Amino acid sequence: MEYASKLLANAVYEISQLPGIGKRTALRLALHLLKQPEQQTVALADALIKLRTEIAYCKSCFNISDSTVCEICANPKRDEGLICVVEDIRDVMAIENTSQYQGLYHVLGGKISPMDGVGPQDLNIGALVQKVKDGKVRELIFALSSTMEGDTTNFYIYKQLDGLDIVTSTIARGISVGDELEYADEITLGRSILNRVPFENSMKAN
Amino acid sequence: MEYASKLLANAVYEISQLPGIGKRTALRLALHLLKQPEQQTVALADALIKLRTEIAYCKSCFNISDSTVCEICANPKRDEGLICVVEDIRDVMAIENTSQYQGLYHVLGGKISPMDGVGPQDLNIGALVQKVKDGKVRELIFALSSTMEGDTTNFYIYKQLDGLDIVTSTIARGISVGDELEYADEITLGRSILNRVPFENSMKAN
Repeated sequence: MEYASKLLANAVYEISQLPGIGKRTALRLALHLLKQPEQQTVALADALIKLRTEIAYCKSCFNISDSTVCEICANPKRDEGLICVVEDIRDVMAIENTSQYQGLYHVLGGKISPMDGVGPQDLNIGALVQKVKDGKVRELIFALSSTMEGDTTNFYIYKQLDGLDIVTSTIARGISVGDELEYADEITLGRSILNRVPFENSMKAN
Repeated sequence: MEYASKLLANAVYEISQLPGIGKRTALRLALHLLKQPEQQTVALADALIKLRTEIAYCKSCFNISDSTVCEICANPKRDEGLICVVEDIRDVMAIENTSQYQGLYHVLGGKISPMDGVGPQDLNIGALVQKVKDGKVRELIFALSSTMEGDTTNFYIYKQLDGLDIVTSTIARGISVGDELEYADEITLGRSILNRVPFENSMKAN
């Protein structure tokens, strides 16, 4: 595509570097910004720069944070002995939104994926193993996605913990609450029968 | 949603002000930028600010331009007597890409749409009428989208030109080249029969 202006061409190029945004969408967004007050573009650019240059990560759990220790890790009411291992901070948000979890988190920053060039050394696994070795952790909950990469990562960490006194668990997989059995996929339905729970437990949860 | 960081919350808010981007996509984009080198975010922010603050519009046709007169209007090979009236610069790009048009453009900057609070005074209609009154223009081609707003805008401009010596036309509506008749909508098919062209003309176009 030919652009009438180099400024526009450059803006479209930079916007289209974002994932899931092609040249056409980038052009639409650039033209939208041109129609809005200048202040909106300034605020957007400013927010992006501030985010990228000033963001900090919690030195304990690697969650995004405005300070060196995040609000969750700093909260004395949370159970230090229970750590939920997640892929990224979106998972932390999702679990926090349930209000069902009172332990801490450990954000790996990704999954082991040789295809994408991500090895164990690229993730925050060393710090997690060290935490367990320090002896304060009672139980690890693996909450990675149930893909091949997620399972690989779970297994890698599990092997690293060999010989250490720690309980490990994974979040339950099963039919979503409110879902009809007939529309569930076979693997999920099969697992939910194998991993059935005592009826009394399911009553307690409600 | 609760964000662990005010910087992140702010960035997500600003990104989600863009059209077609919700909170979830905004979060995904913000986290993507955090994983990329800082230089990428700086380049993006810089391109947006430069676009918004330094962009100029051609004083003749209101196309986006890096100078006061755009390349198209400044080109002596283009036919000054023929002006194609379009909604925004994306339409200019689309028509330029065909390499079939050698006249000039006039970018209105939108369509008359009372529902969105856009009246004739918000568009570059006055300058267009003045151009015609100055007598250099032989023919106006209306190339707005064939919606109610587009037709209203066409008709408004047409009425403004009342009594002036000018030919007006609209781009042809019909079945796309290569399309099957059976899948065409009734209105387009109906119009393409009413506005049929001599067979010799259709041969010439190829």
